[in-house]
Amino acid sequence: VSEFDRIRTYLSPLAGEGSLQLRDDGATLSSPAGTTFVVTTDSVITGVHCIGDESPALMAHKLVRRNLSDIAAMGARPYAYLLSLMLPKETTENWWRKFTRGLSECQDEFGIFLLGGDTACTLGVMTLSLTAFGTLTGTALTRSGAVAGDNLYITGTLGDAALGLAILLNKVSATTPADATALIQRYRVPQPRIAIGLSLQGCASACMDISDGLMQDAAHLARCSDVALRIDAHRLPLSSATFALRDKTATWLEYIVNGGDDYELLFTAPSSQADSLAQIARSSGVAITKIGHVTSGNGVTLHNEDGTEIKIAKQGWQHF
Amino acid sequence: VSEFDRIRTYLSPLAGEGSLQLRDDGATLSSPAGTTFVVTTDSVITGVHCIGDESPALMAHKLVRRNLSDIAAMGARPYAYLLSLMLPKETTENWWRKFTRGLSECQDEFGIFLLGGDTACTLGVMTLSLTAFGTLTGTALTRSGAVAGDNLYITGTLGDAALGLAILLNKVSATTPADATALIQRYRVPQPRIAIGLSLQGCASACMDISDGLMQDAAHLARCSDVALRIDAHRLPLSSATFALRDKTATWLEYIVNGGDDYELLFTAPSSQADSLAQIARSSGVAITKIGHVTSGNGVTLHNEDGTEIKIAKQGWQHF
Repeated sequence: VSEFDRIRTYLSPLAGEGSLQLRDDGATLSSPAGTTFVVTTDSVITGVHCIGDESPALMAHKLVRRNLSDIAAMGARPYAYLLSLMLPKETTENWWRKFTRGLSECQDEFGIFLLGGDTACTLGVMTLSLTAFGTLTGTALTRSGAVAGDNLYITGTLGDAALGLAILLNKVSATTPADATALIQRYRVPQPRIAIGLSLQGCASACMDISDGLMQDAAHLARCSDVALRIDAHRLPLSSATFALRDKTATWLEYIVNGGDDYELLFTAPSSQADSLAQIARSSGVAITKIGHVTSGNGVTLHNEDGTEIKIAKQGWQHF
Repeated sequence: VSEFDRIRTYLSPLAGEGSLQLRDDGATLSSPAGTTFVVTTDSVITGVHCIGDESPALMAHKLVRRNLSDIAAMGARPYAYLLSLMLPKETTENWWRKFTRGLSECQDEFGIFLLGGDTACTLGVMTLSLTAFGTLTGTALTRSGAVAGDNLYITGTLGDAALGLAILLNKVSATTPADATALIQRYRVPQPRIAIGLSLQGCASACMDISDGLMQDAAHLARCSDVALRIDAHRLPLSSATFALRDKTATWLEYIVNGGDDYELLFTAPSSQADSLAQIARSSGVAITKIGHVTSGNGVTLHNEDGTEIKIAKQGWQHF
């Protein structure tokens, strides 16, 4: 099967406006009236960002969702994507079929389409690279606008994906099979917070998505905004499955504050936005939790309810 | 050295408008007034698209130029780029310094800037992926507009890069050291035909860049336009270094018609455009040669001066 046939069979059905049916070297791209683009690129490499035994459809979901989480963090609406597929020679038709089915599911869920890309053969490692375009009405959310006095918020719950990966790697045992499934699902299929990102325009002063662990990513936000962040450990939002592991897991808190792959939005906003944020949480069906606040200075600290600081070993997160 | 420090030291100096100083998850992107975007993505993988012993600066040049050749083929002007760098753990500061120096040279030559991207660690293989944006005034050149009666043209000369690679691999010996240098340079540093691509708007009926060999790429153009292409072997434009190898190289003609990495523009235009094309060649300083014509039917054939067909074994080109 030639590259040409594979593109026609598996990728052309995913192609949309400007893609020129994937027959040309590139694609054309114009932002819809009244919008500008946000663009981001992110990769999934087997053995680095995933275990490699995932179903091809799940790899497609992870690849797309990782990127759309970045689009959400900037307050934009998913629009289209380019793919760069670097695949081992032995990649099967079955892989192509399942991978593109996963892409198709993402397209339906997020209203995006394939714009173009390239494919290449590699000697073993599979590298899937995606460039995502979002449309922006207004100004992009960035990491740079937090000011002392703002509150610090997080969407959803923390630590689930990291514990899901730990379960897959037999480092942790979930309390029940249902909990195990829920945590693994959070690792496998990140949920980009698109609706919340769109609603945060004019409300959040700074925003980012967290994928490398709360503490490490919060440090980026603090540095970009030139402020300090003070996080209250007892306020961190947890799923019941994660909470249930507290007494069974030696490094439980580290999974929550240093574990990666959360793909939640971390953002700051002044107290005057509290009502708006409650409304956004209600309409999106996703919790928004105040986890701390912004002060002058620099760095990120984690505190007990009595105010004492919790020292946690800093570790770079390994996605796998 | 952290990823953060590397980005700040080596990549931030390359960043331009919309990049948000590379501090955020993505970049913002608006097409300049009166233009739309063309976008393309292409990768360089060590062991696939290059030998791997190239200087890092040359790898940067190849990566950028491969992509800008696609931009040129669509009649657009280079604008900006995203980078996805998947690098082995052992990548040195020296590599970063030289690679980004190569990028900087390309930025100066083509008037482009870095918009964003991502970096990741791999286990051995180096994969460099680039997404290039071009701005388009008017309509994109595509592979689809050739009609019977048009002439077929090529820019520059053919086969040089393939022979340059063969010299590097000790499969072919150049006639003189100067010839060897010239051919290897053509392999190492492709020259995207930007000025010609821009001028071909309203003049060419179909256009593409050839990177996988003339015969194979011409077949794509023929299929997309639903026409046949008839190529005259004696008209193929050759450099003196390539011509000098004719009697010394058993598969000489195959290097010319099947060898890849030419990065020349292959295009069709009606005879009425002959004067315009001569003017474009003069002002760009790059030869434009009529190498055949378009007929009804399908497929690509290669002919002797007496009209007899030359049968050449079809081979997919290996960039390395």
